[in-house]
Amino acid sequence: VEGKRTGRRPGSSGSRDKILASARLEFAARGYDGATILRIARRAGCDPALVHHFFGTKERLFDEAMELPMSLSEQLPAILHDADKLGENVARMLLTSWDSGRGRQIMLGLLRSAVSNRRAADRVRELIMRQAMVPALNALSVPDADLRASLIGANFVGLMIARHITRIEPLASLSTEELVQAFAPALQQYLSGDVGRGD
Amino acid sequence: VEGKRTGRRPGSSGSRDKILASARLEFAARGYDGATILRIARRAGCDPALVHHFFGTKERLFDEAMELPMSLSEQLPAILHDADKLGENVARMLLTSWDSGRGRQIMLGLLRSAVSNRRAADRVRELIMRQAMVPALNALSVPDADLRASLIGANFVGLMIARHITRIEPLASLSTEELVQAFAPALQQYLSGDVGRGD
Repeated sequence: VEGKRTGRRPGSSGSRDKILASARLEFAARGYDGATILRIARRAGCDPALVHHFFGTKERLFDEAMELPMSLSEQLPAILHDADKLGENVARMLLTSWDSGRGRQIMLGLLRSAVSNRRAADRVRELIMRQAMVPALNALSVPDADLRASLIGANFVGLMIARHITRIEPLASLSTEELVQAFAPALQQYLSGDVGRGD
Repeated sequence: VEGKRTGRRPGSSGSRDKILASARLEFAARGYDGATILRIARRAGCDPALVHHFFGTKERLFDEAMELPMSLSEQLPAILHDADKLGENVARMLLTSWDSGRGRQIMLGLLRSAVSNRRAADRVRELIMRQAMVPALNALSVPDADLRASLIGANFVGLMIARHITRIEPLASLSTEELVQAFAPALQQYLSGDVGRGD
């Protein structure tokens, strides 16, 4: 886990968290290339020099601000026990993690950055493949885990863009639970149905 | 079909087409905000003044360069006749239109622009909802045509991003036909299966 406290004064770690929260808002709104340290400092109500003091470069600030709030693999055992509801359970896990709050800011920050910035694109790929879906699919021992993970990641990224960036209706206005129900059957198909290979 | 000749001298319409082709490459590589008239002119081997002469503003050049090469509605009758192969036929129509050549440049130009530019986001929304999927779904008379169209559009946009921008493997390396087979069952589900509402 990155970002653990290293014996700083309490006031200092408060500013640090405030800068991270401001950075997430800024990256979510403008993407990596559009975001500036100056505007992040202004959002946090501090001097830009303090941002540099804590994080050095914009790259390092981006990496820390985009740290995942939770590990999906911790949630897996509770999700995998019911094969019939797999699509629904995985859809709910993905959407409760990423469709609101800090998870949504991180997702938007990564997506708005990934189209023009290789570092962010690498991060999205890493997130989908290694941290989220491939472990889940390996745990299920389905064939073609990598292909299925990439198809699910692609569909999920598309849903987040349609919902929060291009705002396509009625997708943008569904409640999270309505979106779970709309996404679940296709997700079940990608998890355990035919994907045009092997078996 | 847009972009037809309107009685200009042959030399002039040749330059015009060359500028449009260069603009598609530039928008696909850098998105709307990153693209410049200067670099487009350089790619086309002409003076920036000629770009302004033909197209006026970057906005108007973007609009013309992103014109669709074909109307999807023309292809519909051939696609809708076989209900069992609907997912496969629609997947093949979408991918043959957008996964290579000019269609792919336009798709990348729109997607790289849409995350930071409202004009391009409007265009993506318009494309998906009015020009492509809603007419198809209305022709099929399935319920919840708008919701289904937005889910399909979202999934398709996600596939294009994963394949051509973040390059997630093995998705990025599939042949177009392999991707048709991988996408078809989920698409069939979005077209005619349960999407968590009424019906």
